[in-house]
Amino acid sequence: MTLVRDGLVTHLMWRGDALRYLDQTLLPGQVRFEETSDYRDVCDAIRRLAIRGAPAIGVAAGYALVLGAKSLDTDDPDRFGEEVRAIGREIGACRPTAVNLSRALKRLFPRIEGVSSVSDAIQRLEREAKAIHREDVDMCRKLSRLGKDLLPESGGVMTHCNTGGLATGGYGTALGVIHAAASSARRSGKPIGFKVIVNETRPLFQGSRLTAWELQQAGIPFVLMTDSMSGQAFSRGMVNCVIVGADRIAANGDTANKIGTYSLAVLARYHEVPFYVAAPTSTLDGGSSSGNEIVIEERNGGEITHPFGVPVAPERIEVSNPAFDITPGRLITAIITEKGIISPPFRETIETIL
Amino acid sequence: MTLVRDGLVTHLMWRGDALRYLDQTLLPGQVRFEETSDYRDVCDAIRRLAIRGAPAIGVAAGYALVLGAKSLDTDDPDRFGEEVRAIGREIGACRPTAVNLSRALKRLFPRIEGVSSVSDAIQRLEREAKAIHREDVDMCRKLSRLGKDLLPESGGVMTHCNTGGLATGGYGTALGVIHAAASSARRSGKPIGFKVIVNETRPLFQGSRLTAWELQQAGIPFVLMTDSMSGQAFSRGMVNCVIVGADRIAANGDTANKIGTYSLAVLARYHEVPFYVAAPTSTLDGGSSSGNEIVIEERNGGEITHPFGVPVAPERIEVSNPAFDITPGRLITAIITEKGIISPPFRETIETIL
Repeated sequence: MTLVRDGLVTHLMWRGDALRYLDQTLLPGQVRFEETSDYRDVCDAIRRLAIRGAPAIGVAAGYALVLGAKSLDTDDPDRFGEEVRAIGREIGACRPTAVNLSRALKRLFPRIEGVSSVSDAIQRLEREAKAIHREDVDMCRKLSRLGKDLLPESGGVMTHCNTGGLATGGYGTALGVIHAAASSARRSGKPIGFKVIVNETRPLFQGSRLTAWELQQAGIPFVLMTDSMSGQAFSRGMVNCVIVGADRIAANGDTANKIGTYSLAVLARYHEVPFYVAAPTSTLDGGSSSGNEIVIEERNGGEITHPFGVPVAPERIEVSNPAFDITPGRLITAIITEKGIISPPFRETIETIL
Repeated sequence: MTLVRDGLVTHLMWRGDALRYLDQTLLPGQVRFEETSDYRDVCDAIRRLAIRGAPAIGVAAGYALVLGAKSLDTDDPDRFGEEVRAIGREIGACRPTAVNLSRALKRLFPRIEGVSSVSDAIQRLEREAKAIHREDVDMCRKLSRLGKDLLPESGGVMTHCNTGGLATGGYGTALGVIHAAASSARRSGKPIGFKVIVNETRPLFQGSRLTAWELQQAGIPFVLMTDSMSGQAFSRGMVNCVIVGADRIAANGDTANKIGTYSLAVLARYHEVPFYVAAPTSTLDGGSSSGNEIVIEERNGGEITHPFGVPVAPERIEVSNPAFDITPGRLITAIITEKGIISPPFRETIETIL
């Protein structure tokens, strides 16, 4: 099987009694798959970012719950239900910011209500987990097709972090839009006129490790730079639009996404360049009224002081390492979802599609 | 001898027939000095950033020319002069952006005009090189004293790259201002009320490797973050002012400084936070009318794709690695020099102090 084909990356595979997943921490140097029947391994993979990206976390969480359910040693549906929920809480605590994680679990829990037997419950959970996966790919393909016409035919398209197939069930969000635009050009027999500007995305280099890798596999032109270089790219007129993904979008359009996104939104506004967010509606969180209500994960400072284990800072210092930031809706030109492209005022437009 | 004392870092030492210098590429892990009588070693040290920072490069270039002059095997003043100028051109080509490099050489060349003997010429060159070093420390101390009252008594002071003693003849520019403010607080028996926000400064980590090290040595409170986190620090209200150094300031105030500076200036403007540049007048370049005339050094992409030799990106990709960017004078609140703090319109105020 080809790992990457026409924008689709096959990195999460359900084996019936195991989840096979690509360890993304090893890319681009190594393409190594792991396979496990233990939901705790999946939790660990999510925590250490072997599986990452809001939609991908949601998909993996669904399968993790099925693995957890299959490991239980009880025939009593009530006891089974309690234990599945306990496992769900454990999975839900792996990472706090991406709404897709808790949403996947919330979608699975009702499947075990009123079941006749444990095996019936497991079947229902498995069906739902596979549906989450399938629907994620469908939503991302759809939003990518809708969004592709927003990209310029030539010039620079800046993106941040990785929002490709690796970040989702297999087809990207922001990078999916880029793939769709590239495919569209190819189908019309035209060369791809735009170039993707890839920010490396410190501290964990998802831009250089993952996005550059996906774009290279897909043959889409790109240039890699550090996050500190985006300002200069704007001032040189290299950036015609910015497109990013999202980990959670509040009811007013405020968007939690990879740290560094907010700076790009301010730069885009200052340079009058459109700033797009691409996300399936599973990333919209009507329950958060604004970005103030979104919990931002603070990760270990070692990611900053010891990239790949190499010490680059003195010992025993204070380090700040928020994994995400909040871009206010007022800085976002449009949000691209599978149900349509929505514009400000987001509190109204998001409500209509939720 | 203590390496760091009251803001002064003793990292460039003239030994009469050799230059002793700290290899900054090894910090903070190792404090290792090198000593050489070969100007080509100094050139190499400048190119590979073992000696870096515009004022420090100027000082080292002066000493390098003296070492080159002392190595010549001729008694003929004319031939000596020609060979010294050839060596000077070699030194001048090491790095293009910092004006202090070419300025130091321009200051030394006239010393060998009309000399009676080669030994007389060498003496004059050596005297001038030492004067450049001494004056740099004096200018930086003076601008730091002038600038310290611009810093807030509490809140966050963001800085970028390293502008401490390591970047100069021994006393910092932007970090010198921070040192002076901290010393001032200490002398009045007050705790240091502000905290320095240190951006790591990819690709070469001068913030985490050098600035964090200097601040830790000096006992000044700071927090380290990646460059991608500065936007969030602004939006959280953590930043009360930004202060950076400069590699070259054009006649209209446009400032070439470490890549990433421009993004901070845009963020500061958007959040209505003052943005200061601290630099001795040796960094002012009246010969460049605006930033458009400043050559920006493009460095090897390996600095981005292989930090500390670790591959973080696919092979054979396009990488952009400008070492500096241009911050337009209109985004700068004030420029702090040893001759005074100057405000816009810079084309007028810079002219008065040049």
